[in-house]
Amino acid sequence: MAILVVGSVAFDSIETPSGSVDHCLGGAATHFALAASYFTQVRVIAVVGEDFAPRHEKVLTDRGIDTRGIERAPGLTFHWTGSYAGSLNEAKTLGTDLNVFECFEPKIPKEYEDSEYLFLANIDPVLQGRVRKQMPNVRMVCGDTMNYWIADHRENLLKVLRELDVLLINDGEAKMLSGETNLVKAANKVMEMGPRILVVKHGEYGATAFFCDRSFAGAASLSMPFRAPALPIADVVDPTGAGDSFAGGFYGYLASQPELTPAVFRNAMFYGGVMGSFAVERFGTERLQSVSQAEIQERFQLFREISHLE
Amino acid sequence: MAILVVGSVAFDSIETPSGSVDHCLGGAATHFALAASYFTQVRVIAVVGEDFAPRHEKVLTDRGIDTRGIERAPGLTFHWTGSYAGSLNEAKTLGTDLNVFECFEPKIPKEYEDSEYLFLANIDPVLQGRVRKQMPNVRMVCGDTMNYWIADHRENLLKVLRELDVLLINDGEAKMLSGETNLVKAANKVMEMGPRILVVKHGEYGATAFFCDRSFAGAASLSMPFRAPALPIADVVDPTGAGDSFAGGFYGYLASQPELTPAVFRNAMFYGGVMGSFAVERFGTERLQSVSQAEIQERFQLFREISHLE
Repeated sequence: MAILVVGSVAFDSIETPSGSVDHCLGGAATHFALAASYFTQVRVIAVVGEDFAPRHEKVLTDRGIDTRGIERAPGLTFHWTGSYAGSLNEAKTLGTDLNVFECFEPKIPKEYEDSEYLFLANIDPVLQGRVRKQMPNVRMVCGDTMNYWIADHRENLLKVLRELDVLLINDGEAKMLSGETNLVKAANKVMEMGPRILVVKHGEYGATAFFCDRSFAGAASLSMPFRAPALPIADVVDPTGAGDSFAGGFYGYLASQPELTPAVFRNAMFYGGVMGSFAVERFGTERLQSVSQAEIQERFQLFREISHLE
Repeated sequence: MAILVVGSVAFDSIETPSGSVDHCLGGAATHFALAASYFTQVRVIAVVGEDFAPRHEKVLTDRGIDTRGIERAPGLTFHWTGSYAGSLNEAKTLGTDLNVFECFEPKIPKEYEDSEYLFLANIDPVLQGRVRKQMPNVRMVCGDTMNYWIADHRENLLKVLRELDVLLINDGEAKMLSGETNLVKAANKVMEMGPRILVVKHGEYGATAFFCDRSFAGAASLSMPFRAPALPIADVVDPTGAGDSFAGGFYGYLASQPELTPAVFRNAMFYGGVMGSFAVERFGTERLQSVSQAEIQERFQLFREISHLE
């Protein structure tokens, strides 16, 4: 089933201990769409500027991603500059040029309206809410956010949370959003805000899914959390987009399955880790452009091998 | 098979958000021995002072732990004062009164000499080395250490590391010891210092075992790391001794098995997490004094359930 994703398509200039790249294709929606494209049909809503060339769009269309919802606007594409020079665990933002993103008004093409899965990538919650409202009949809504919206746009964010089935955030964001320092308490508080499932990403330590009582029928038996590992990787080239790639693998797999059973949710958590582990192997979206299905299956087995008793 | 453990038996005064306790029984060897006692015979080498009463010793002997190696010395028992008021993830040491521990000279009773498994809990590496030398024929040597010894007693510590089969430390210690910020690189460097297996504890995120080429025959096929989860716990009462309890569950299980196969190592990682998860439920060693075998097996299954695909 098709996923509609709204979020940023951007250019990233990144410095890591492995080197640096200038204006490589990035953005949350890009990473998400590429990762999810290995599992299901993906449709993107975003805005780009005049510097977004056919070769950039080709990265997406080569993966079968529907780009008809990517609007062209006068000006330059959203540009993020960041450095992981100090630590690969946290990006230091050196610059955020919103450019055409500043006046972004998401429009949903007619052809996208039958999308059954909606992913609200990390953008202004006001925009997330508008897209959600235009897609009232989707089967599932999953969203992401970040510390900036949690701290300074809390009321708007809370409105969006009420509309979410699944929220994917990291440890710090879950604790910040809830005001709790204990992860389980934080998760329970966040789920009271709306999401029936909360996936907390722990970076190099994997991710935990929490399920509340109001969870999907299929997931109801998962009253206990579920923990998926991350692959220990010696050479992380560029962590940018790892979380979005996790989301793409997770949600892409979910959308590809006829039924949402506990087993499907567990597999989705593993596929999230798998796609995240590919993403960091190269700069930007390079690795996600050319993973094979065999490599995905092989890595899924590896995740199983490093975490299962027998 | 019997484990000989050398380390601290102490009194802890602890403050956590759940309350506080004064002079409760603690120490690395105590936590380790109690946790391991559910799996195998444990023998303790330590020193205590005149304030160590029969009721304190009874906590150990009630669990079948051999205390003949606990020496009585004039003066007071080692006393640690710590607070988790700020964060349950890190203790703030408010006081360390070494007392009788200052002149501790480990002596191995004749009855302990046939111990097949040796655990060098976190004490001065010079003492760890002396005990190691007196037990040349053990089947396996496992050790722990901490940032203080890594930073200020490095040369002595390096001598001990060369004698270890397994080292159990946490993330920060592995990175500090190796000078690497990446966990996999840190693990490889630490294993070059001696240990054939490195278990890195990630606190609330679980633990990872790394195996080097020179690993035990049985573990040789485990060229990939193995990740065990931690149980997400809402009400952590007192994290003191969680790492030592992990070590006790891990090593106790290993010592209880006739053969060291990859499956046995994996189970041991899970049993480490299981015993660590019990330890934090109450202050000090309270919970570890009265776990039942049924509870251990039930929690082991829970660890499996929260991390396995089906």
